Amino acid sequence: MSSQTFELLILGSSAATPTSTRNPTAQLLNIAERFFLIDCGEGTQIQLRKYKARFQSVNHIFISHLHGDHFLGLPGFLASMHLLGRKNELTVYGPKELEDIITVIHKHSDTQLSYPLKFVATQSLQKQVLWEDDKVEVYSFPLRHRIPTTGFLFKEKPLPRNINKYKLDKLDVSVAEIYKLKKGLDALDNNGNVIKNEDLTNPPPEPRSYAFCSDTGFFKELAQSIQSVDLLYHESTFLEDKIDRAAQTFHSTASQAAQMAVLANAKNLLLGHFSARYAYLEDFLEEARPVFNNVSLATEGKIISI
Amino acid sequence: MSSQTFELLILGSSAATPTSTRNPTAQLLNIAERFFLIDCGEGTQIQLRKYKARFQSVNHIFISHLHGDHFLGLPGFLASMHLLGRKNELTVYGPKELEDIITVIHKHSDTQLSYPLKFVATQSLQKQVLWEDDKVEVYSFPLRHRIPTTGFLFKEKPLPRNINKYKLDKLDVSVAEIYKLKKGLDALDNNGNVIKNEDLTNPPPEPRSYAFCSDTGFFKELAQSIQSVDLLYHESTFLEDKIDRAAQTFHSTASQAAQMAVLANAKNLLLGHFSARYAYLEDFLEEARPVFNNVSLATEGKIISI
Repeated sequence: MSSQTFELLILGSSAATPTSTRNPTAQLLNIAERFFLIDCGEGTQIQLRKYKARFQSVNHIFISHLHGDHFLGLPGFLASMHLLGRKNELTVYGPKELEDIITVIHKHSDTQLSYPLKFVATQSLQKQVLWEDDKVEVYSFPLRHRIPTTGFLFKEKPLPRNINKYKLDKLDVSVAEIYKLKKGLDALDNNGNVIKNEDLTNPPPEPRSYAFCSDTGFFKELAQSIQSVDLLYHESTFLEDKIDRAAQTFHSTASQAAQMAVLANAKNLLLGHFSARYAYLEDFLEEARPVFNNVSLATEGKIISI
Repeated sequence: MSSQTFELLILGSSAATPTSTRNPTAQLLNIAERFFLIDCGEGTQIQLRKYKARFQSVNHIFISHLHGDHFLGLPGFLASMHLLGRKNELTVYGPKELEDIITVIHKHSDTQLSYPLKFVATQSLQKQVLWEDDKVEVYSFPLRHRIPTTGFLFKEKPLPRNINKYKLDKLDVSVAEIYKLKKGLDALDNNGNVIKNEDLTNPPPEPRSYAFCSDTGFFKELAQSIQSVDLLYHESTFLEDKIDRAAQTFHSTASQAAQMAVLANAKNLLLGHFSARYAYLEDFLEEARPVFNNVSLATEGKIISI
């Protein structure tokens, strides 16, 4: 296990029309204390408060597409950040028209934000890197929906190798040489003897990854964008009884989401975006399990550690 | 008491930044089965579901101004009406720029609503009639806030006089003549004898009224627009300890709201739009009561029969 945090908080599990217990799509992802808000349906700021999440720590917001249930909480979230006196830059990644919408709302409410707000336009035809730093990289990739839509892939960067401290303590090595060992290189001790890297270090934990597929019809090519993810969130608006309706509306069934988890060689599957017509969500698990066993439900308040 | 319904449901009591228990402004008013949605802060559709309100019966929505906490639930509300297959016309009354905002959102989400949506622009400089039918009339009137803002006044039209059925049964009177009696006129019995109206009817209950003052600084002239209302909802964002902040931001204190109730000769006062800084709302009642005694709090889920 890595000591670095990789934790997902589910804020909403409903499809387009929310219910009295299910909110529209939003998730908060924490990787190594980078807080990413993923989609921002109506009521997201209220959900964040309810679950006592780190509101002002969010510096990056990713919006998959411009159907209301995926972004209508954004104007209120931006306004509250402003009213609470935020100063740090905030970047929103999403379809380019999102900037139009936010701009017209700010114009008519005579709002000048207290912090810099940056928009980065996603494009829905090919995979692209949206953001990276020393620990994390974020990609968008194409989904197939009624309007331009992307998913998002969050990946840890490779961690340094772990040095066996017990063995190191017995040697006489400078800090500069230890740094070489961490990077996977051989080193020299203070007497000029070569220390073979594999003698003194263990490989780091594998970098972990999370893929978010908000609204999409089933298409095989998607699997290439999300190969071998540790956790795949995949919408399952419908059950197989509505497979025709799923195709018509460019949504998926629980079974199709499970098939995608198989194709993508995912380790775990998380289902969400449930149509309001379904009262009993256990049915989604029962439908998915025969296809892909490691499956759970993205219900409000759930925290998943990856 | 009139047999006609006149009932207000509070959906949100918070000022600009919602809390985990207080939602932004929205109210549902039912007068004689006409359902009026008054302001529509983020999460209003979820609140309506929570309180099992008559979602699709709303035909008129009144938006006081374009600060986010008063209208950001509207796009989602309109979308859900559409997804649920609404066919009836819906009219939104509010600042003219509201139509721009909704139009750009519908354009970028590629939404063609299943029902006719009409916008009626309010103007914030003088009182105007916005809508009326045989039983109800609705006015807007100016408030003083940082951007153009109106309040709304909902009034029953005078009800017909109540006929004393016990006395009527003893007479021989045609339906046409009974109709005259209800209107307050004298009538003739089938033998040609004059029936004096006051001998056979009682006056109807006084028409009731409700005034909604969303966001406003204190100004005496407001009292003229809302004279003698049965129920006055008046914002009280702050307590008197923040009277300077109230003046700066064009908001009111609980004491100022109570002073307005006195000036307007209101029968009852309802306080709301509480700043998130106040955890104990009883303080608002304690501040208002010495000035105006019939005061209560507009908290989530409260139903007030007028």
